[in-house]
Amino acid sequence: MISVGIINVTGYMGAEAARLLRRHPHARLTSVTGRSGAGKSLGEIYPHLGPVGLQVVEEVGDVDVVISALPHAASAAALLPLLDRGLPVVDLSADFRLKSASEYEAWYGVAHPRPEALARSVYGLTELHREAIAASKLVAGPGCFPTSAILALAPAWRAGLITADIIVDSKTGISGAGRGLDLANLYGEADENVVPYSLAGHRHLPEIGQELAGLRESPPPRITFVPHRVPMTRGILTTCYAPLAPGRESTTAAQALELYREAYAGEQFVRVVSSPPETKQTLGSNACLVYVTVDERTGRLIAISALDNLVKGGAGQGIQDMNLMFGLPEAAGLDDIGLYP
Amino acid sequence: MISVGIINVTGYMGAEAARLLRRHPHARLTSVTGRSGAGKSLGEIYPHLGPVGLQVVEEVGDVDVVISALPHAASAAALLPLLDRGLPVVDLSADFRLKSASEYEAWYGVAHPRPEALARSVYGLTELHREAIAASKLVAGPGCFPTSAILALAPAWRAGLITADIIVDSKTGISGAGRGLDLANLYGEADENVVPYSLAGHRHLPEIGQELAGLRESPPPRITFVPHRVPMTRGILTTCYAPLAPGRESTTAAQALELYREAYAGEQFVRVVSSPPETKQTLGSNACLVYVTVDERTGRLIAISALDNLVKGGAGQGIQDMNLMFGLPEAAGLDDIGLYP
Amino acid sequence: MISVGIINVTGYMGAEAARLLRRHPHARLTSVTGRSGAGKSLGEIYPHLGPVGLQVVEEVGDVDVVISALPHAASAAALLPLLDRGLPVVDLSADFRLKSASEYEAWYGVAHPRPEALARSVYGLTELHREAIAASKLVAGPGCFPTSAILALAPAWRAGLITADIIVDSKTGISGAGRGLDLANLYGEADENVVPYSLAGHRHLPEIGQELAGLRESPPPRITFVPHRVPMTRGILTTCYAPLAPGRESTTAAQALELYREAYAGEQFVRVVSSPPETKQTLGSNACLVYVTVDERTGRLIAISALDNLVKGGAGQGIQDMNLMFGLPEAAGLDDIGLYP
Amino acid sequence: MISVGIINVTGYMGAEAARLLRRHPHARLTSVTGRSGAGKSLGEIYPHLGPVGLQVVEEVGDVDVVISALPHAASAAALLPLLDRGLPVVDLSADFRLKSASEYEAWYGVAHPRPEALARSVYGLTELHREAIAASKLVAGPGCFPTSAILALAPAWRAGLITADIIVDSKTGISGAGRGLDLANLYGEADENVVPYSLAGHRHLPEIGQELAGLRESPPPRITFVPHRVPMTRGILTTCYAPLAPGRESTTAAQALELYREAYAGEQFVRVVSSPPETKQTLGSNACLVYVTVDERTGRLIAISALDNLVKGGAGQGIQDMNLMFGLPEAAGLDDIGLYP
Repeated sequence: MISVGIINVTGYMGAEAARLLRRHPHARLTSVTGRSGAGKSLGEIYPHLGPVGLQVVEEVGDVDVVISALPHAASAAALLPLLDRGLPVVDLSADFRLKSASEYEAWYGVAHPRPEALARSVYGLTELHREAIAASKLVAGPGCFPTSAILALAPAWRAGLITADIIVDSKTGISGAGRGLDLANLYGEADENVVPYSLAGHRHLPEIGQELAGLRESPPPRITFVPHRVPMTRGILTTCYAPLAPGRESTTAAQALELYREAYAGEQFVRVVSSPPETKQTLGSNACLVYVTVDERTGRLIAISALDNLVKGGAGQGIQDMNLMFGLPEAAGLDDIGLYP
Repeated sequence: MISVGIINVTGYMGAEAARLLRRHPHARLTSVTGRSGAGKSLGEIYPHLGPVGLQVVEEVGDVDVVISALPHAASAAALLPLLDRGLPVVDLSADFRLKSASEYEAWYGVAHPRPEALARSVYGLTELHREAIAASKLVAGPGCFPTSAILALAPAWRAGLITADIIVDSKTGISGAGRGLDLANLYGEADENVVPYSLAGHRHLPEIGQELAGLRESPPPRITFVPHRVPMTRGILTTCYAPLAPGRESTTAAQALELYREAYAGEQFVRVVSSPPETKQTLGSNACLVYVTVDERTGRLIAISALDNLVKGGAGQGIQDMNLMFGLPEAAGLDDIGLYP
Repeated sequence: MISVGIINVTGYMGAEAARLLRRHPHARLTSVTGRSGAGKSLGEIYPHLGPVGLQVVEEVGDVDVVISALPHAASAAALLPLLDRGLPVVDLSADFRLKSASEYEAWYGVAHPRPEALARSVYGLTELHREAIAASKLVAGPGCFPTSAILALAPAWRAGLITADIIVDSKTGISGAGRGLDLANLYGEADENVVPYSLAGHRHLPEIGQELAGLRESPPPRITFVPHRVPMTRGILTTCYAPLAPGRESTTAAQALELYREAYAGEQFVRVVSSPPETKQTLGSNACLVYVTVDERTGRLIAISALDNLVKGGAGQGIQDMNLMFGLPEAAGLDDIGLYP
Repeated sequence: MISVGIINVTGYMGAEAARLLRRHPHARLTSVTGRSGAGKSLGEIYPHLGPVGLQVVEEVGDVDVVISALPHAASAAALLPLLDRGLPVVDLSADFRLKSASEYEAWYGVAHPRPEALARSVYGLTELHREAIAASKLVAGPGCFPTSAILALAPAWRAGLITADIIVDSKTGISGAGRGLDLANLYGEADENVVPYSLAGHRHLPEIGQELAGLRESPPPRITFVPHRVPMTRGILTTCYAPLAPGRESTTAAQALELYREAYAGEQFVRVVSSPPETKQTLGSNACLVYVTVDERTGRLIAISALDNLVKGGAGQGIQDMNLMFGLPEAAGLDDIGLYP
């Protein structure tokens, strides 16, 4: 039984990590911090977490591993001393995802406080980096959109089935925006509404590029990524479009599907499905459903993924990482089926 | 490890039982039936249940216990042969809830096929009938509304704190109506809508009366019950109103709350909360949150409960019953905290 | 053609008044103010209102009538100088609804700045005070909950059909909470959730009591009122319960319905319906649907109303008042049928 | 004042036409038919339409113009005799949209009953075919997706700004599926869910191609179109992606926006907006909001449109067509601002 601390349990991602650890058979949540909530019981902030029975404190206590649910920049600042002490860390923020400090600065607008740590952090997309994660003490939990886009695209991209001209159109639930008091997050604004945003470039874009570039020697992908907010709390559906590569134009939908099945054979949480997936099929679970087909009229591949942004797109994947880091069963504490309806 | 069969897995209640059993540490789902789905895989009917890996069959196989998620009348018909064989049964339908066969016939419009079985069935509201459930082979899972109303009212009613003039106003998610193709269940009809129904008398009314009557020797309660459909999938919030009884008019909110705390002390799934509960705090969990206060201007008690209609209001409570029947830990396979947000 | 100014167009209620005036055949919106938005175009604050083509200014210009959508206290402060100038005013806040300054202070926590104005203000519930509204220069638009409760109860209460023991259970969409940045208004908190609130006494309670008391000489009503937030943007459904009065216990549902039909005969916006109303049937319209029945098991009357809280429960009723004040057709600019689905 | 008949008022599209005609200043709804509802009052089928005061009949009466809201095939069958009589017709079905009878048969699976009528029907996208509509007696109301896609793409396509490699990713509310009793339309299935569908080719695809092909002499567009259902009742947001054409790669976002502003200058219902549009800004109105930008990293144009599928995407556009056909003000009976929030 390992002891776990969550830094910033007061956001949705931190709260979700607490929920998942509640029934982890080999880990126990023993310490939670929160910027505004220190001194309160966890149940005051999140009544549903009352049974966890913890007080929110200012500094994470003596634990075996820390999961940080702080926003970027704040997360790195809080984690550096822990990293220096050698404490295993899963950082759910963006601070250790990008390998390039300059790219980090370009997208996040702040200089990275410890560029050398980027070299030893591992991008925590389990299905791509399982062994490195198991050997690491600093795992960067992937962004929610990148998890969905990379898992949808990786098999086709790695196999050279598609060109670099990739369109990624994502639809996300509102919880992805966190618990902050922004006008756009009000029920009256988000209900019965579809809202495209970050047209000028979303911060999750470089992650997708970085990880795809690592899969294939060739010119890097040229990705257009547009996220859309849709009126639901959880879930991301990502639809990816790319031309079949020269020489591969005759690929059939069935062949593409077979390629994907082989690529994810043996994965418990990434399931290649034979009809288009729906976000609700993953609600509350760590599953990512992936579907692929070919638009034969135009010679384009269409790859679609569905996941819960707070689980496989966040806290659940972080716990999957933690399980690997400690040699625990990878699926411990995680559901592979969703809450439906 | 006990083996479990679900009769009629194709409805929402049956599917929910399958979901919960997926991570039960001491029970395994080994057989599922479905009226229309026989011959299909479970994953064809409910893609999220694909990993369960079962085929839907016509007759439940050789199992240790059966959970029936059939509608009333059909359920009794299917269960009678199993009961005759002595198989332990949890029936989630209404067929074995009412002790009076004539009342059953009056409300359900069909004669009860085995009135004598009503005498030995146990009403599966765990917090009221724990010992009898543990000793029974035929447990009737309570209705979703009665679970919420009885848990909200029982402490005050049993203690004589309120008169018999009880108003029960319930707000339910749409999943309570099942997966049937009714116009009122269409998204376009139910979204952004509040719909009162069954004004002439909902079938769950006699259950509430029967169980309250069993708690106190006095004239039976005189209950007005109005359910309302609200635009969400899961959850019931029930608001109960009753005058403070003569001689008890000076009861304070704090005293009422203390009475409730004592009544549910030691219960893992029924939690008395100190501010009004919200249905979302129970989503996907077996929790029922209960709150009580006194409207001092008018001398009325207000008791409120929140639960997930498919879990504590259905399949979860059925598994709680099953756990008791087999001497398993009562909470096995069940969450006590909800999926939030 | 009269010219209209809206004070505080930046809240939901002010924006709704602007929407409705957009197609008013006899009135034109010529001036809008907003606390935070002064200097911006209306389309910057509310893109859907861009075609209105107005700038938000600090002080309302030269207009024939002002509609105030400010919160209480701020509204009275802003309106006093206008009232002194003799400008006709429709105040959608609570500042001129209660006849008693001391009751105002007790519920709103501030002393009323002009108690003598309360005597000449008219409570703008058109169906109750049509003539007085037409003769007034200061109309207080009723609260959204009081509109729904009073219209549901008035015929039975006035006719002596029910006792004073009244329960009012309301379900409201989230827009009723306004556009403020409160945690409870976030999509992630309000979606898939039912939330009871103001258990200790909602500020709309005294309005209901005041108006019912004015309809019948007898002990005043003893009302318990509990509002609930449900996951939709607009709409209020109010369910009222009261015992049939002594001597009236044999009243049938049909008789009660006939009483209501007579009471509202000739009303265009209050429609007595023959089956339980649904909020969605009133979406965007000025209609209030009313239904009444009798629970014969218990001798209680159940009266239900449905309306759009921003229209008949707010800005629409305010325009109906304005129409009366200026001798315009009462229904000008207002729909009597809703947006469905 | 013209008299209007609606064929098949019982679906959502027919009911929406009835709602809009309710306040049309120059047209009156005098006759409504419905396949299942004949003999009932309109208020029995749609309570919100009760005040319209019509009976549903089997055959449309003596009217000046007919709006058909029947499904394809059924619509043509019902309209042929009326066309033969010379009655002006707006057909909201797909039956007269495609110019090629063989393409109709390929996509709809039935032979067209009157191929020669296709030559004289006019595609009712007002902004493209205003004059032809005004001169026609048979107008085919465009599909909801094509309206959104064509309005988003037309200016860039016509100007040669983009290549033929077009991706159209649409997000639609559930009402687009109609009022039929399909499992996918149940609230429990559609709520909190994003569902891609018709991956093998949606029937609205050929309309988009036909209309774009008519705007530019060049190889026809090669469109991949994927619709997604999102949990709301009304609204379509369509996101279109296409590479900037050779020689036009240096086009800036501002230049593209200016091109669009010029293209739609003078249009009341198509508004080019300066930030990404949201479906809710069009709720219940006949507006289509269009936005365009350039992804400078990749040289792609992104064009986005938002509309209400039942109004500009259906019945509203049909009434706009009707207004043109009868020389009425084009905007009569139609709102240009939406219901917000």
